[in-house]
Amino acid sequence: MLIVGELINTSREDVNKAVESKNTAYIQELASAQFRAGAHYIDVNCGTQVLNEAKMMSWLVGTIQEVVDCPLCIDSADPVVLEAGLSTADPDKKPMINSITAEGETFANVLPLVKKYNTNIIALCMDDNGIPETLDDKILIIDKLVGDLISNGVAQDSIYLDPLVRPISTDKEAGTDVLKALLYIREKYPAVHTICGLSNVSFGLPCRKVLNQTFMIQTMAMGMDSYILDPLDRKMMGLIYASNALLGNDSFCREYLTAYKNGLYEG
Amino acid sequence: MLIVGELINTSREDVNKAVESKNTAYIQELASAQFRAGAHYIDVNCGTQVLNEAKMMSWLVGTIQEVVDCPLCIDSADPVVLEAGLSTADPDKKPMINSITAEGETFANVLPLVKKYNTNIIALCMDDNGIPETLDDKILIIDKLVGDLISNGVAQDSIYLDPLVRPISTDKEAGTDVLKALLYIREKYPAVHTICGLSNVSFGLPCRKVLNQTFMIQTMAMGMDSYILDPLDRKMMGLIYASNALLGNDSFCREYLTAYKNGLYEG
Repeated sequence: MLIVGELINTSREDVNKAVESKNTAYIQELASAQFRAGAHYIDVNCGTQVLNEAKMMSWLVGTIQEVVDCPLCIDSADPVVLEAGLSTADPDKKPMINSITAEGETFANVLPLVKKYNTNIIALCMDDNGIPETLDDKILIIDKLVGDLISNGVAQDSIYLDPLVRPISTDKEAGTDVLKALLYIREKYPAVHTICGLSNVSFGLPCRKVLNQTFMIQTMAMGMDSYILDPLDRKMMGLIYASNALLGNDSFCREYLTAYKNGLYEG
Repeated sequence: MLIVGELINTSREDVNKAVESKNTAYIQELASAQFRAGAHYIDVNCGTQVLNEAKMMSWLVGTIQEVVDCPLCIDSADPVVLEAGLSTADPDKKPMINSITAEGETFANVLPLVKKYNTNIIALCMDDNGIPETLDDKILIIDKLVGDLISNGVAQDSIYLDPLVRPISTDKEAGTDVLKALLYIREKYPAVHTICGLSNVSFGLPCRKVLNQTFMIQTMAMGMDSYILDPLDRKMMGLIYASNALLGNDSFCREYLTAYKNGLYEG
């Protein structure tokens, strides 16, 4: 199980303020807290800093890697910003790019960075027609995206495929389409990882956390092995340790018990 | 999704006291509360009343069905007690028996009651050698038990097969064996229902509720359609409504939203 900590994102007001005021202590503590809570990657996104995004990305990457002992996930829609982050990131800790897609221009712009910096890559299941609305279309894009990455020399286990979760409030198959896509991916591309953010699934509904937690457990049961989430959410983390143990991946529940002793989750 | 409310069981001290003192109001309120919270069956177990079990069962069944508009699940290891409950139960609401097994004597004693009272039947996956420890043995017993019930004229959709959950603390495959058994049952006996209690899976571990909740979601994703649980556990009920919606069984999330408006769960 791989956790990408999502909290360093300037769409969050406190983070935006901290970035604008170059509040090193705030950023470093937010990164450290996520690392201590079990994050394997720290996502870094300063997309709201439209005029300064590349400069801010470099500053954030340098600031964060002074204090955490894990690689970073460089998150931007702009390839120039991605390169600003990647060129600052410690090359000894394989970074992750968030993200590439099957859109022609994005694919052409991001692929060279994956190769040049030897990164892991989050591949979003969308193309020039947008986010697919049916399972069949989703699978067509998965095949195209994984096929194009592999034929360009990207190793299967460097790919983190995000099936892109849509809200169940408007389409009752939105959840099951993802579950079926996961079974397809596990069968056809066993070394490819799968990843997602959880919150889209519950858009427009009350008690969103209940839906997000449930969808994490369902997707993990179907083979998803990575999540972009808030590792300081102790309830969610408990459900992850519990899922892992119940899926037979944790002999004598050692990880579950150790995380409990270390206070990483609550019941 | 079918919920069997488990709270009327004399292994719980207050219930035992209420039964001994024939506290009608207490028992009726506990039954009504479970029915209001969404239980489709009310389980009735007075197994601790060793010397009076049959008499107490008749009293409980009569007392409970005065106030709830759902059928009862008559729960005893003793066929005489089962018959005491079944003969008192309203024949217009198909009762459930908890339980039959593949043990020779139990099967021979309980089967006639299933036929005579036209009941649903919880079938525990164990035989004269006890609870199977491997998936292969589990599947042998499932085939024997379902085969024997069907060949004796019990309809597939009257059978609620309980794969019997063992603790993951002592066997890391205990959870996945159940998940695999569910896929097998769904494929081979599509009309047979599956049911379980959840708490065994977490025996011996901290934060048991987290494990029980997670296992409910995992089993439901693999096709389990019935649970014996506490319907007053608002957290568990929320996860059930969420699972149902995410699995594509709830158009426009109507049931999820209605249950939320009625205060049946919490986030």
